[in-house]
Amino acid sequence: MRRPSLTLLAASLLLASTVACATGTTIPAAAVKTAEQLRDKAMHDDTGYRIAESLTTEVGQRLAGSPADKRGVEWAIAKFRELGFDKVYTEPVTYPKWVRHSERGAIVSPFPQSLVLTALGYSPATPKGGLTAQVVKFDSLDALKAADPSTIKGKIVYVGFRMQRHKDGHDYGIGSPIRVQGPVIAQAKGAAGYLLRSAGTDPDSRTPHAGVTGFRDPAKAIPAAALSNPDADQLERVLGYGKPVTVKLDLDCGIEGEYTGANVIGEITGAKYPDQVVAIGGHLDSWDLGTGAIDDAAGVAIAMGAGKLIHDLPQRPDRTIRVIAFANEEMGLWGGRAYAEKHANEVHKFQLGTESDFGSGRVWRMSASVKPEARGAIEQIAKVLAPIGVAYDAKRPGGGGSDLSQMHGKGMAALSLTQDGTYYFDWHHTANDTFDKIDPKDLAQNVAVYAAFSYMAAQANGDFGSAPGAFADDGAGD
Amino acid sequence: MRRPSLTLLAASLLLASTVACATGTTIPAAAVKTAEQLRDKAMHDDTGYRIAESLTTEVGQRLAGSPADKRGVEWAIAKFRELGFDKVYTEPVTYPKWVRHSERGAIVSPFPQSLVLTALGYSPATPKGGLTAQVVKFDSLDALKAADPSTIKGKIVYVGFRMQRHKDGHDYGIGSPIRVQGPVIAQAKGAAGYLLRSAGTDPDSRTPHAGVTGFRDPAKAIPAAALSNPDADQLERVLGYGKPVTVKLDLDCGIEGEYTGANVIGEITGAKYPDQVVAIGGHLDSWDLGTGAIDDAAGVAIAMGAGKLIHDLPQRPDRTIRVIAFANEEMGLWGGRAYAEKHANEVHKFQLGTESDFGSGRVWRMSASVKPEARGAIEQIAKVLAPIGVAYDAKRPGGGGSDLSQMHGKGMAALSLTQDGTYYFDWHHTANDTFDKIDPKDLAQNVAVYAAFSYMAAQANGDFGSAPGAFADDGAGD
Repeated sequence: MRRPSLTLLAASLLLASTVACATGTTIPAAAVKTAEQLRDKAMHDDTGYRIAESLTTEVGQRLAGSPADKRGVEWAIAKFRELGFDKVYTEPVTYPKWVRHSERGAIVSPFPQSLVLTALGYSPATPKGGLTAQVVKFDSLDALKAADPSTIKGKIVYVGFRMQRHKDGHDYGIGSPIRVQGPVIAQAKGAAGYLLRSAGTDPDSRTPHAGVTGFRDPAKAIPAAALSNPDADQLERVLGYGKPVTVKLDLDCGIEGEYTGANVIGEITGAKYPDQVVAIGGHLDSWDLGTGAIDDAAGVAIAMGAGKLIHDLPQRPDRTIRVIAFANEEMGLWGGRAYAEKHANEVHKFQLGTESDFGSGRVWRMSASVKPEARGAIEQIAKVLAPIGVAYDAKRPGGGGSDLSQMHGKGMAALSLTQDGTYYFDWHHTANDTFDKIDPKDLAQNVAVYAAFSYMAAQANGDFGSAPGAFADDGAGD
Repeated sequence: MRRPSLTLLAASLLLASTVACATGTTIPAAAVKTAEQLRDKAMHDDTGYRIAESLTTEVGQRLAGSPADKRGVEWAIAKFRELGFDKVYTEPVTYPKWVRHSERGAIVSPFPQSLVLTALGYSPATPKGGLTAQVVKFDSLDALKAADPSTIKGKIVYVGFRMQRHKDGHDYGIGSPIRVQGPVIAQAKGAAGYLLRSAGTDPDSRTPHAGVTGFRDPAKAIPAAALSNPDADQLERVLGYGKPVTVKLDLDCGIEGEYTGANVIGEITGAKYPDQVVAIGGHLDSWDLGTGAIDDAAGVAIAMGAGKLIHDLPQRPDRTIRVIAFANEEMGLWGGRAYAEKHANEVHKFQLGTESDFGSGRVWRMSASVKPEARGAIEQIAKVLAPIGVAYDAKRPGGGGSDLSQMHGKGMAALSLTQDGTYYFDWHHTANDTFDKIDPKDLAQNVAVYAAFSYMAAQANGDFGSAPGAFADDGAGD
């Protein structure tokens, strides 16, 4: 949902950029030519694809705080070094450690049978022996919000919204709040437990979609889990008989102290302005059910692969290319928030940035939040990306992606490079998020986009407007 | 694989039937007309679909010998009665009870991570604490057969054949022996455990395919399990690094005594020849991971639905329509074998028979094993089925389907009504075998086929050649 005023603002920025173009930030012709070469090389290069293969095969799932999280950090350090990055380092990120031991669910009556479900992030465990209670169904978050607590107290709330596939994945804007806010609302109304139809677009797969809840205070949390779509269908059919339906949840999971992981950072050091950085990245952690291929080995691979291609040029770029593999994005942007907090006072050093975290589908749209005087440079970037299918939308802001949205919030100039997410929510946060879901050609196109834009931003004459508090009203993240 | 001699035999039978047609078995014109009406009604009727919905929703999975098996039997008795069948009864079937408690797998080294797998039928449990051993890979059953036992002894054998989708599902002819015979061969060569790439055509789903092994003597059995296709990909990628790969299997499953279940039988009693029966059916049991929708609630629903439509005619058919819901097909045709043993000396009373056990895809081909003098009647049936997409193949034998193949083996005249199995092996024996996989229009077409053929067979002037030992050489099941 976007406010009309933002569109007007964007239009006025665009107008301003057209006026300012002649005197504003530009990309030198030689840099444009090199970016075109990078783009064309990347389209037929499997560097990114092999990085994603390496991470998902050698480490597999990387649940934040798990032993595999540590192996993921070690992998990222080693991979940056292997690829020849000039500087490789880590920054600590501390967060509550949520652990999944086991999970089971069943319809107890009227028709006893098991249900395939997965506990949600920050869900506490059920009492020993499980939680057995009657189910009360809602079709939407609004219906739950409107419900009288007396109809909920002591019951297991079930919310049954069915997501549909869209290129921009916009149904997640409905499904995600049902997972994040729904359990919090249900708890406040006295529910004993919470179930949702998975926030996922795979109608026929018994692979429930994990994801975080809005629980932050363990004292105000109830067991919460997602049913796979066919299990949600089954529960709804059973509810359709009009008899009371009792479900048993048996979840052994919860927060077990704190953990300190790390953002892992690799840099191609700028030759002219080493302190000025183009920031790109993905997140290194993943949910634990799959191997975190599309979410987000792909993003890490796209950014690392782009950095590697720039590394392989005969000369270092003018500015530094900083590739960040963020810690614990999944349970609340912990890596991104820690990064932005640590680097808030350096925001002016961030030339331009964006993160890849929407799978491995092709980039089809670019938008930007930059100062008006840099619109000309953005249009130059757009012109290089157009031949590989990227349309420039001058009216939309650029959000910077999931973790880097936090730096954008501090004033970093940012792009949005929107990927085709038609099938992203089929696999997102499920056991099916595995390497086979990555199409090598689609991934190569992403690397081409990131390599070309990063290089051009690094070579620009002038900046894109990063400054403390800039872009605060651009509406990114709406 | 069919022997040429059988084709010649079939051709000679066909020739004989053409000659004999004028004096052989025929379907009266009035019966053909009623069959056409049954067919057309069934195409727009949801009786079968609702039966499948009822079984999968109210009972769910029905693993042979489990508490749900008993509920399945109770459901079938009640459903036959509710549909108005004239006679409802059961016949006991006794078999070893195999139980699945839990199952886990993991790559221990060089890259520790979990594997999604499922224990195979008759697999014993692993020792307490699990079985950890090095993996040795084979690409085919022949390669395993040829292997020197010294390369296998104490290891976990993995066989990695990848099934492709085909309308007639013929790759299962390779995948199934890898699951059934593979573990037996590996055990005989001293293997400690057995893994296969699932015998399934879903390349991207983390839902392993269960199924029975050839283990019959618990003293000569080793833990055996199937990996999902993406997990098999992962294991093969890890093996591709060329280092020793160690896997841990932790299976709690095995045979726990005997169980006596039941074939459940419902009849529409024939008005003229109540002792002569047209036998149709499906199997009531299922694997435990899904809800047994396409395998084989669909078959039960198709046969019950066909019987119900014949029941609703103004008059009872001349011969009895016998619908059989077989016990424990999955772990070795126990219900079908018990049935054939009990009824072997009544084989001449079986007018014609066939079972539905290949999902809910449309019937596209009919073939028959009948006496030459009945080919004309088969051609009459084929003519009624042609408008709904069924092609008659006069050269192929009719096998009678899974359980009823056993009665065919005793001499029962039989049809094969081949369904479109393009996607059958995507879901077969997996958690994804759920009600949403059944297309109501496809299921209705099946009911139409079964109702029309059953009625015509029941009204025929003459028989189809059932006799002790008939059709022994027809090559069905080749």
